[in-house]
Amino acid sequence: MKIEDLDTPVPVIDRAVAEANLKRMQDYCDAHGLRLRPHIKTHKSIAMAKRQLALGATGITCQKLGEAEVMADAGIEDILISYPLIGPIKARRLAALAGRARMTVAIDSDVALETVAAAAAEAGRGIAVLIEFDSGLGRTGVTSVEAALALAEKAAVTPGVTFAGLMTYPANENTVTFVNVARPAFAAAGLPIPMVSGGGTPAAFHLHELGVIDEVRVGTYIYNDRMMMGAGHARLADCALDILATVISRPTPDRAIIDAGSKSLTSDPAGAGGPGHGLIRAYPDAIVERLTEEHGMVDLSACAKKPEIGERVRIVPNHVCPVVNLHDWVFVVDGDDVEEWPVDARGLTR
Amino acid sequence: MKIEDLDTPVPVIDRAVAEANLKRMQDYCDAHGLRLRPHIKTHKSIAMAKRQLALGATGITCQKLGEAEVMADAGIEDILISYPLIGPIKARRLAALAGRARMTVAIDSDVALETVAAAAAEAGRGIAVLIEFDSGLGRTGVTSVEAALALAEKAAVTPGVTFAGLMTYPANENTVTFVNVARPAFAAAGLPIPMVSGGGTPAAFHLHELGVIDEVRVGTYIYNDRMMMGAGHARLADCALDILATVISRPTPDRAIIDAGSKSLTSDPAGAGGPGHGLIRAYPDAIVERLTEEHGMVDLSACAKKPEIGERVRIVPNHVCPVVNLHDWVFVVDGDDVEEWPVDARGLTR
Repeated sequence: MKIEDLDTPVPVIDRAVAEANLKRMQDYCDAHGLRLRPHIKTHKSIAMAKRQLALGATGITCQKLGEAEVMADAGIEDILISYPLIGPIKARRLAALAGRARMTVAIDSDVALETVAAAAAEAGRGIAVLIEFDSGLGRTGVTSVEAALALAEKAAVTPGVTFAGLMTYPANENTVTFVNVARPAFAAAGLPIPMVSGGGTPAAFHLHELGVIDEVRVGTYIYNDRMMMGAGHARLADCALDILATVISRPTPDRAIIDAGSKSLTSDPAGAGGPGHGLIRAYPDAIVERLTEEHGMVDLSACAKKPEIGERVRIVPNHVCPVVNLHDWVFVVDGDDVEEWPVDARGLTR
Repeated sequence: MKIEDLDTPVPVIDRAVAEANLKRMQDYCDAHGLRLRPHIKTHKSIAMAKRQLALGATGITCQKLGEAEVMADAGIEDILISYPLIGPIKARRLAALAGRARMTVAIDSDVALETVAAAAAEAGRGIAVLIEFDSGLGRTGVTSVEAALALAEKAAVTPGVTFAGLMTYPANENTVTFVNVARPAFAAAGLPIPMVSGGGTPAAFHLHELGVIDEVRVGTYIYNDRMMMGAGHARLADCALDILATVISRPTPDRAIIDAGSKSLTSDPAGAGGPGHGLIRAYPDAIVERLTEEHGMVDLSACAKKPEIGERVRIVPNHVCPVVNLHDWVFVVDGDDVEEWPVDARGLTR
């Protein structure tokens, strides 16, 4: 298949750029003695996960059980679910997973611990837990060292459960403060912290500077996007996934309509990555100013050259992770050839 | 299956509410002599499309060829694609469709007309076109009566193509102005306008007041959402689709985290429908203030009663159409019973 044969809108991946992104992160982690546990929520692809492992990753990270099930079914054996699992339905699914992969689960409450314990009991297999703490995002995670220690102590005496360390997202200066208070407190309680897992592509190449991180969880780095450009992590040349779209209408001299809307690009903003809903590579002065579900409205007023109806354009998305999750297939471009790859874990939010 | 058996997050549909929404719109159209051509982009479901036809719809509307292919494969015979199709790949697909369904396509340029003409020639079947005009949205559509007439005249003399009327979205006062200028101009050119198609759920129940609309294209009305509440089209009791989610963490007294993020709810805002990323039915004073991909951050500070970890909540989404498009399955609740229905045309943006 050639890129000219693709109908639009469609996600296209530059394989060489993705491969370079994967290698750069693995090399960085190797150089600094960090373990890399890539988050598959970005690519949701068995083939990409296996490539990450082949390059040296110690295992993978999943956000949801459904993602982990797909990866375990494909033979991946070391999986962290960086997300609290709550309740008996999740416990049953986790038990089934524990029968075929080494499972670690992040917890931040007694209820989450009880779910893991129930799964371990049902599986007759040990399951490791990481205590998640909040480093400032205001999302999940305990908010004090005392709460982390209390939960770790409960975990340590729960049959079938192993306390494996601490986890946070993102890893930052607050992480350092928390860990430096936690280490002596945990040691005094007779419960040394085996490992600290920290995440986030935006500051990934600075994680060694924190001095407290053992394991790196990053997802977006495989493809990058405008947000990662805005965060200073990536250059345009490091963005591996574009939406290939077609100009379908030119109603006025300064307006083009493309066939990619929020059902192809999402409504996520780019943060510091720039205005609008994506960067059109060939028309960097154009602004994708509005999206409806299947239309992108492009302001061409700052463009010297303007596209014609029928012209194809490549758009770097604002936030690549939910974009991938919209598409059943991605098209991997390798020189002149194009291969169709499934997004194996697409839509698995449960 | 019972609702307690469902894992979360998951879309659940109250069948009785959806059915009432469908009937109310059909009754409205029947009472005012309007033809109803529902837009399937909201539900993307063969079963729902067939229900709309059984209630009296004259055909269906699709935005993309992929949606139309799924519906034609299911035996639906009268399909409008309300979207310009551009280029030879689209022409081939349209030709294949024209072999098994009565096809109408909206066009707003010579290139779009040429695509339809190429499809009609390949299929050896006639294809109707509607000329799309812009009623103020600033999306696709010609921007003058002169341009509409010129394109209609070209269409009328193009072999295999039939000029079937005018189309716009949304239908509003600008629509009236445009049509009232167009009618005499088209008549003077010997090309009477057979039909005017107007769309949009928000003002749907006022379309008869415009006096120029023959065909109603609406999609969101089947489920409704917070945007439709904000637009005055729907009450909370008319919202048929919720995301069923679980509270997975309560890190602070005023914060709950739910297991539905932007990969379940999208990042679309509610417009006048209210703040945040969805309305939690049991906690109307809670604000879903931020989403990441798989987490929803809920501000409980205004709530007298607050949910516990493990509690399930139902969330009315801001914008139901892209929400449905995230999920492979919806769960239709009918009294105590729950059925799993496929979202047949999910992700078909091409």
